[in-house]
Amino acid sequence: MAFHFELLDTDGAARRGRLQTAHGVVETPVFMAVGTQATVKGLTPAQLEAAGVQMVLGNTYHLALRPGSELIAEAGGLHRFMSWARPILTDSGGYQVFSLAANLKIDDRAAVFRSHIDGALLELTPEAAVRIQEELGSDIAMCLDECPGHDAPSESCRAAVRRTLHWAERCRTAHRRADQALFAIVQGGTDLELRRECAEALVALDFPGYALGGFSVGETPQQMVAALEPAAQCLPERKPRYLMGVGRPEDILAAVARGIDMFDCVLPTRNGRNAMAFTAQGPLKLRNACHKRDSGPLESDCACPVCKQFSRAYLHHLFLADEMLGPTLLSLHNVAYYSRLMAEIRRAIAAGTFAEFCAVSLARLGGKI
Amino acid sequence: MAFHFELLDTDGAARRGRLQTAHGVVETPVFMAVGTQATVKGLTPAQLEAAGVQMVLGNTYHLALRPGSELIAEAGGLHRFMSWARPILTDSGGYQVFSLAANLKIDDRAAVFRSHIDGALLELTPEAAVRIQEELGSDIAMCLDECPGHDAPSESCRAAVRRTLHWAERCRTAHRRADQALFAIVQGGTDLELRRECAEALVALDFPGYALGGFSVGETPQQMVAALEPAAQCLPERKPRYLMGVGRPEDILAAVARGIDMFDCVLPTRNGRNAMAFTAQGPLKLRNACHKRDSGPLESDCACPVCKQFSRAYLHHLFLADEMLGPTLLSLHNVAYYSRLMAEIRRAIAAGTFAEFCAVSLARLGGKI
Repeated sequence: MAFHFELLDTDGAARRGRLQTAHGVVETPVFMAVGTQATVKGLTPAQLEAAGVQMVLGNTYHLALRPGSELIAEAGGLHRFMSWARPILTDSGGYQVFSLAANLKIDDRAAVFRSHIDGALLELTPEAAVRIQEELGSDIAMCLDECPGHDAPSESCRAAVRRTLHWAERCRTAHRRADQALFAIVQGGTDLELRRECAEALVALDFPGYALGGFSVGETPQQMVAALEPAAQCLPERKPRYLMGVGRPEDILAAVARGIDMFDCVLPTRNGRNAMAFTAQGPLKLRNACHKRDSGPLESDCACPVCKQFSRAYLHHLFLADEMLGPTLLSLHNVAYYSRLMAEIRRAIAAGTFAEFCAVSLARLGGKI
Repeated sequence: MAFHFELLDTDGAARRGRLQTAHGVVETPVFMAVGTQATVKGLTPAQLEAAGVQMVLGNTYHLALRPGSELIAEAGGLHRFMSWARPILTDSGGYQVFSLAANLKIDDRAAVFRSHIDGALLELTPEAAVRIQEELGSDIAMCLDECPGHDAPSESCRAAVRRTLHWAERCRTAHRRADQALFAIVQGGTDLELRRECAEALVALDFPGYALGGFSVGETPQQMVAALEPAAQCLPERKPRYLMGVGRPEDILAAVARGIDMFDCVLPTRNGRNAMAFTAQGPLKLRNACHKRDSGPLESDCACPVCKQFSRAYLHHLFLADEMLGPTLLSLHNVAYYSRLMAEIRRAIAAGTFAEFCAVSLARLGGKI
């Protein structure tokens, strides 16, 4: 089945759509749970399904280093290796090379760096990023891009865009798998003219989907939101738009309102491991003593396996007793919370009530954008 | 429903039976997964059920210290607090007071000690051990006993037996809950005459079940096995016999062959967290490089959720990448392995082929008793 995106409804700039992939259908806007090392931390595939997860993200940098994409290919690909039957998106490894690797040297040919695990000298070229993702067998692969920091000087941003475009062409040329869609990444920081140039050049190459990269790298939420709408408007209406590495529920609401279809973020699992639960009324810190005797669930209207079975008092106890079930259960609830949020967003867009849903949700969350 | 034990089959000294408890039926011989702090480490109740767990053990000492039995009683008891609907046995806290607490002072009235968590000065009397377990609401409670070390002088062993008998009477007098069975614990180390005296005195008090305590405290497996049969023979045929804190698969086979019905041990979860998988062919160390590219399951004939879904290569990767899903999945398999072992033991006893099953199993395990 060839990759396909169908735009079903719009409500202002917000969009509801459907991705058809080699591993099934994904309803958008979608949040992808992050499965960096071939596992969404602490959760089994059955738990992810119970939490309503439609799609997971795998990190090419981590998987290429350990256990290696060749080993995963031998095992039948990433889906089979991690026993996840639904769609997977892999990033290109670019972001991690910039944020995790040591001794990075980058030129037009390649990024050369040392592994953060064992110090081995490695290089990543656009062609290698494509080959690795083809070996992983993800449903959506990403072009290798250069992601400068939030405070990079404008000359560096311009150079990063130039290199990102050059690498996108090389990725497109190298890409072979018909059952995998290759998305391009728009860079340009918060310089909207630079983003427009980058987007236009990538759109001319006709990719099946486009990501906005270089957000969530240190800019304020206000800066990000201000840049989102014009950045999204540079992208073709009939192609999916993926905002990489974002974010908090309030960021997702703001980004959907500005035309974004796809998201990923470590927050639900990372915060879950640290005893923070997402709820429609804002975050709960489960270590706090106020939960010690609270027999209620995390959220009274949440249908997730955690809220159906366990009290806040029990979850509080698990964290105080340093029991690994605490991180597992809170990660499970948080991932389910994100799934529910996205389902509610899709319903609101379909009903033409997204602006109202957004206002009510943000007021409940106590968030200000 | 009152507590009841039915002896269904015998095969030599081995017995197959059925426990009726307030939370349902348990087929014996049974292995209880250890849920020290109101959780079997890393596993959800749904995973425990999928692993065939019939009954779990909670530790009174840990639960009394944190979150406190009063809090658990308020929450509706331990079953409801941890969301486990099947039977629970709680120990008396005695063993942990001896092994974990600091500054222990013991006399006939009470054990006085400092909490291993916060150093608080606490005391445990037989009456308190019963009250706490009644608050926890377990299906089977244990009398407070004194458990001397393996190398304790015979005078200390004799004094411990005397105190254990005295405390058993006080526990029996204090015990109120009709939906909870109170078991007595036979002490006496490897001194079989002392064990016989202890057992006879306890049997005269007519408890609904009896445990053998003071094993698995440093004696060799050979010493334990040699003491088991005569110790078990001191106990009434129509009452369940529980060997506390044991053990390895080979220990369980040896103990069932000598008339034991109930077991508990931390090994399946503790070893699972440390990358060791139990299999019918003996243990596997999943960190070993030999598993790196092994696409097979932990055990080809295991029907557990882990063996149905994941390869040894994937589990090896999870441990090398320090992913918490590794400990979770290996704990799940190991608990399922113990459930399967016990089911096979029950089938063999019913078929009158236990001796053969035992010989074949031990040969496969590579164990020598």
